Amino acid sequence: MTQRSPLAPEAFPDLPPIAGVTMRVARARYKNWDRCDLTYAELAEGTVVAGVTTQSKCPSPEVEWCRDAIPLGSARALVVNAGNANAFTGHRGRAAVEAIAAKVANHLGCLPSDVFISSTGVIGVPLPVDKAEAGLEAAFTAPACGWEEAANTIGTTDTYAKGARASAMIGSTRVELVGIIKGSGMIAPDMATMLGYIFTDAAIEPKLLQQMLSAANKRTFSCITVDSDTSTSDTVLAFATGKAGNAPLASMDDAGADAFQAALGDLCLQLAHLVVRDGEGASKFIEINVEGADSDASAHRIALSIANSPLVKTAIAGQDANWGRVVMAVGKAGEPADRDKLSIRFGVTQVASAGLAVEGYDEAPVAAHLKGQDIEIGVDLGLGEGRATVWTCDLTHGYISINADYRS
Amino acid sequence: MTQRSPLAPEAFPDLPPIAGVTMRVARARYKNWDRCDLTYAELAEGTVVAGVTTQSKCPSPEVEWCRDAIPLGSARALVVNAGNANAFTGHRGRAAVEAIAAKVANHLGCLPSDVFISSTGVIGVPLPVDKAEAGLEAAFTAPACGWEEAANTIGTTDTYAKGARASAMIGSTRVELVGIIKGSGMIAPDMATMLGYIFTDAAIEPKLLQQMLSAANKRTFSCITVDSDTSTSDTVLAFATGKAGNAPLASMDDAGADAFQAALGDLCLQLAHLVVRDGEGASKFIEINVEGADSDASAHRIALSIANSPLVKTAIAGQDANWGRVVMAVGKAGEPADRDKLSIRFGVTQVASAGLAVEGYDEAPVAAHLKGQDIEIGVDLGLGEGRATVWTCDLTHGYISINADYRS
Repeated sequence: MTQRSPLAPEAFPDLPPIAGVTMRVARARYKNWDRCDLTYAELAEGTVVAGVTTQSKCPSPEVEWCRDAIPLGSARALVVNAGNANAFTGHRGRAAVEAIAAKVANHLGCLPSDVFISSTGVIGVPLPVDKAEAGLEAAFTAPACGWEEAANTIGTTDTYAKGARASAMIGSTRVELVGIIKGSGMIAPDMATMLGYIFTDAAIEPKLLQQMLSAANKRTFSCITVDSDTSTSDTVLAFATGKAGNAPLASMDDAGADAFQAALGDLCLQLAHLVVRDGEGASKFIEINVEGADSDASAHRIALSIANSPLVKTAIAGQDANWGRVVMAVGKAGEPADRDKLSIRFGVTQVASAGLAVEGYDEAPVAAHLKGQDIEIGVDLGLGEGRATVWTCDLTHGYISINADYRS
Repeated sequence: MTQRSPLAPEAFPDLPPIAGVTMRVARARYKNWDRCDLTYAELAEGTVVAGVTTQSKCPSPEVEWCRDAIPLGSARALVVNAGNANAFTGHRGRAAVEAIAAKVANHLGCLPSDVFISSTGVIGVPLPVDKAEAGLEAAFTAPACGWEEAANTIGTTDTYAKGARASAMIGSTRVELVGIIKGSGMIAPDMATMLGYIFTDAAIEPKLLQQMLSAANKRTFSCITVDSDTSTSDTVLAFATGKAGNAPLASMDDAGADAFQAALGDLCLQLAHLVVRDGEGASKFIEINVEGADSDASAHRIALSIANSPLVKTAIAGQDANWGRVVMAVGKAGEPADRDKLSIRFGVTQVASAGLAVEGYDEAPVAAHLKGQDIEIGVDLGLGEGRATVWTCDLTHGYISINADYRS
């Protein structure tokens, strides 16, 4: 891993075990490196699954495999390969996915469709089946590992391991949720846009879990962007082992369903922020709040137009209160906007309202806000009730350095 | 001006005078600099005008002024202020535009609506009327200047003066076209996306000139992008003085209309390429050709998705044949695409076809192509007859350096 992001949390958090989940890692050596790069999670019988995947029109065969298996609702294992995305590899890529599923199914005595698979890394090189199979053999007999080791093993260009936890009371039963995630570049909204895995011991029907995950995704993973580029491999999966012994949740009307949805949403938000905080080259974490838009969807598109604007992102990197670039980004979004009703603030300081700079605008508090690591930009369209929040990072020399010579 | 772009032409071209057009420049000192920053073009009586402006929902008052005046079809003067965009400046910005138009109209004895005005520079600071008026006084009595001086005076972050010429035969009369243009950042398609001015001595009806300019714009200025950011001030105006004495063109069926349209299109393409070649921080000029798409519009959107992808642009900067990022950019465009029919080439070398890398792919010729300054990426969707070409530049440390401390 390269130098730890300046926005990283101080340490990997203390995460509880999840009953019914055993994590193991191994060296498949997908690249010429000496690190674990294959993660294998064994899930107890009866585990249910939900998931969201990339909107890319050129998805990897792993994504297609997961899309087919998610509606069946049951899971026994997860395999994550790091160092090779296996995307755009034609029939050879599909064969590699099928071989992995068959090998794990044979080992566990389950259906191939109970095996969930992700791969991340360079595009266009078929995943070597021999390395995957040898890696799996090693993983099957490896000792169980902790969350941090698993989180490190799914990473590629990540500069730190990312994990988070949440919990909820379902009736009198406390259920735990743990998530690990990887991602720092090729991050854009419009779906999961990274690899994330959530494990819980809660008992819950897969359809309800899917409904809750989709709802959480919409307000979390779909609201972050690093560089507007959408991966071919993005996947978030949630596995529920049912080992907590709560009365199984089957509908949002069940006692504890609201609490579980809240905990799941909280966990997803933590994980999404961890990805932004590891945005390639990031030196600032930026929250963009848009209100007063024509609709929530319109607010979301305007917020993303700001968050993806290279000129806004470089201004923040330069600690430059260049709010004109925010006006530009609102204007280019193609959404309803009236220049003369528009208000903009940085942090708590109003800089422009009703179409021009505020009377007696003092840049000092804005400059002080921009010197910090956590930046907030607020935009009020002054048109309606639509609102949205998105999160992004700044655009720095670090992003260029990382991406101008990633593969070479 | 900062260091001249490595993609700049060797020298400013030799451009002929256009009968009926007199260029003058002056120092309005809109910024604390010692350079001419006000350009004043006096146009002969009878000059007609056409124009295209930004699609931004937050346009500058200059853009609104031009939008109102263009349909009236007649022009006597052009004023371009550099160093201050006067955008998002409310009633004070509008008052500045009206004051400039009034002063020039009074000087020439024409209507205010015959005066066309553009401003470019920082957003959010009202254009100082006193400086504009003093600058105009100086310009009225300044000696006529050449095209290169005018091209330098409309520039801001441009690293070189940009001009081009074309000519056409209308019947037995040769007509000349000259254009000057500025722009290097905040360049995105979806309209003019920069300030460009075209002057011709041809006699032509303003409605036909508008039709021809709009058609040329669609294939030239609307097909370039530097950073996906759309300016609040973008404007391209075409002025025709009629002094060549040709039989006036009134419809595309008139003799010479096709030739004039071709010359205008050629001139616009030259000017558009000059802007891309001065893209902030650019080290490579990139042409992206998409074919086999569902429609021309779909091909255009896919081409722009590739051209605006930070990961594609940084890969080219790093001379890295990372064609997986092209797959990613096709996939994220949201347009019809079938991964398994997709083909990609760099220059003349096919790298992937039918959904995977070509058999025996040799990276050497691609690496050699990427070492050059002029890069071509070809994508064949394999679906239909839709095609499009767009032009962009790479994304380098230079872009970050320029934009992380532009205003400060």
